[in-house]
Amino acid sequence: MPVLTSHSFSFLSSSFPSPSLRRIHSPPTPTTPSSARASMGSPVASFPYLPPANRNLMLDLLAAVDRRLNPSLLPSTVPPGVLLFQNPQGSSHGSVDIRSGSPSSSVDFVLKSWLHCKLPGPGEMNTASLSAFLNSSTDAPHLMVELIQGGPASLVLVIDLLPRRDLVLHPDYLEEFYQLTDLDSPRRDLEELRLVSPYRSPSLFVRSILSPTAVALTVDCGEEAAAMERIISGEVGAAAKKAVAVWLERCAGGGGRPVVEEEREALERRDGLIKRKIVETDLVANLPRMFGTEVAERVVGEIQKVFRV
Amino acid sequence: MPVLTSHSFSFLSSSFPSPSLRRIHSPPTPTTPSSARASMGSPVASFPYLPPANRNLMLDLLAAVDRRLNPSLLPSTVPPGVLLFQNPQGSSHGSVDIRSGSPSSSVDFVLKSWLHCKLPGPGEMNTASLSAFLNSSTDAPHLMVELIQGGPASLVLVIDLLPRRDLVLHPDYLEEFYQLTDLDSPRRDLEELRLVSPYRSPSLFVRSILSPTAVALTVDCGEEAAAMERIISGEVGAAAKKAVAVWLERCAGGGGRPVVEEEREALERRDGLIKRKIVETDLVANLPRMFGTEVAERVVGEIQKVFRV
Repeated sequence: MPVLTSHSFSFLSSSFPSPSLRRIHSPPTPTTPSSARASMGSPVASFPYLPPANRNLMLDLLAAVDRRLNPSLLPSTVPPGVLLFQNPQGSSHGSVDIRSGSPSSSVDFVLKSWLHCKLPGPGEMNTASLSAFLNSSTDAPHLMVELIQGGPASLVLVIDLLPRRDLVLHPDYLEEFYQLTDLDSPRRDLEELRLVSPYRSPSLFVRSILSPTAVALTVDCGEEAAAMERIISGEVGAAAKKAVAVWLERCAGGGGRPVVEEEREALERRDGLIKRKIVETDLVANLPRMFGTEVAERVVGEIQKVFRV
Repeated sequence: MPVLTSHSFSFLSSSFPSPSLRRIHSPPTPTTPSSARASMGSPVASFPYLPPANRNLMLDLLAAVDRRLNPSLLPSTVPPGVLLFQNPQGSSHGSVDIRSGSPSSSVDFVLKSWLHCKLPGPGEMNTASLSAFLNSSTDAPHLMVELIQGGPASLVLVIDLLPRRDLVLHPDYLEEFYQLTDLDSPRRDLEELRLVSPYRSPSLFVRSILSPTAVALTVDCGEEAAAMERIISGEVGAAAKKAVAVWLERCAGGGGRPVVEEEREALERRDGLIKRKIVETDLVANLPRMFGTEVAERVVGEIQKVFRV
């Protein structure tokens, strides 16, 4: 699933009516915070189009994941044409990197991607995403962070630990991962900001996979474009860093209840439904439009290998 | 569950800071729309404190339910002291009526309640709620409508068909009851209104029981108090009537997949978790404070009979 980029497309479809899109910058010179150097091994990390605040935040998150999980992850086997790709016209660029967990780890895979697209008319879109899935040795939540920026003043943001149990049937799960971790607090801080409003995915299924503490927001700065950088470095950064820290500590770090053999199949079926829906609705429906059939098939194929759908 | 009133209390706790509360009216003369006369058999329907727009809307909803379900419902056996009750000081008044489904019906019970409380300091709260639960012969959603008005300019609103399945595991259920019925459309109309903002229950569990098309909103009219009546008669009314109509047509009318014997227990366990949580967290925690121990025990006891928890 949450090839976060997949969601980006459905987000995009409802969130950035083309009149509001503006060209925000030509490929900039990347600046790299020192904390993020650990992530620089992957070409994803040198992707040059992201606005600096988004880029610095994503690099910080990737560095935190690398620092903690490096020993549990196998080297990337993603081929060069997926690590970096573009459409034949050169107006869309993308980068996807995936590392699978080692056989002894509870991590299934960590997937990171950045996309840059010139849109029809004046405007461009830049997305950055990080998703990390666990395998069925644990029922602890998956991690999902997506930033979809459609212009200097317009951002859609999704940050969540995706529940893997029916929360009504498992109130102890709700308590362990969402209540005791106080994940609702950064969501509240963000929603109280003046320029922020809720983001509802047009897909009811996507809404259904989110937790009750999910950050799913639109930031629309209008004429106050400078506020965007402040919000991303501030409240957005705090929410994303908290989600990643909780996930690393409580989920990838061996949280969740022991999953007995008979339950694993049901857990895998639930994960599989999410992954399949994303491949069908988002990737297959959108990537060809943006990158052409050949590139899209190459990228989707690589993602399907770890999704196993 | 959703003794809707139960939710009212948790809603209230976060939604109506006392400074915003104002006395809105002395007990008024009720006006009754002709369509609502069918509901007048129950003392709930003569409850005199609700603002006229809320009262007319609730009476319309009750009339629609009565019209359709009357042959499937047993007569009310609620004792007079629960049909109408008040606290020893006479500052809080309440009315709860319940009709159970007949043995051949898929309806478990229909519960309606109105509450009126003078709050400490200047202000009063008026709530109206309608909930209708199905039994385990079907997995179709339950119905929930709650209006909690804390003053002439301040309303919290919850309208939903509560899913009884894990929607991630059952995308066909999501499609049947939420997608094909276009329940998202009245939610969107409401959320686009200028004076409306999302309502997040302080309870993560309550958020978890809601569907992805749930209307969960705060209407805050500030100085434009006259707008409240217009919104309740307009968009709120449309959303509530649509939810009731869909529920009567597709859920109480025999929707859902056949539930085989082995699945019934799981379905009842899930319903039971919701009901139990409501009795524990909301009713037991709040009713005694508002009505005193004796009255609260009488009312909670009557609700527990149909909740069977």
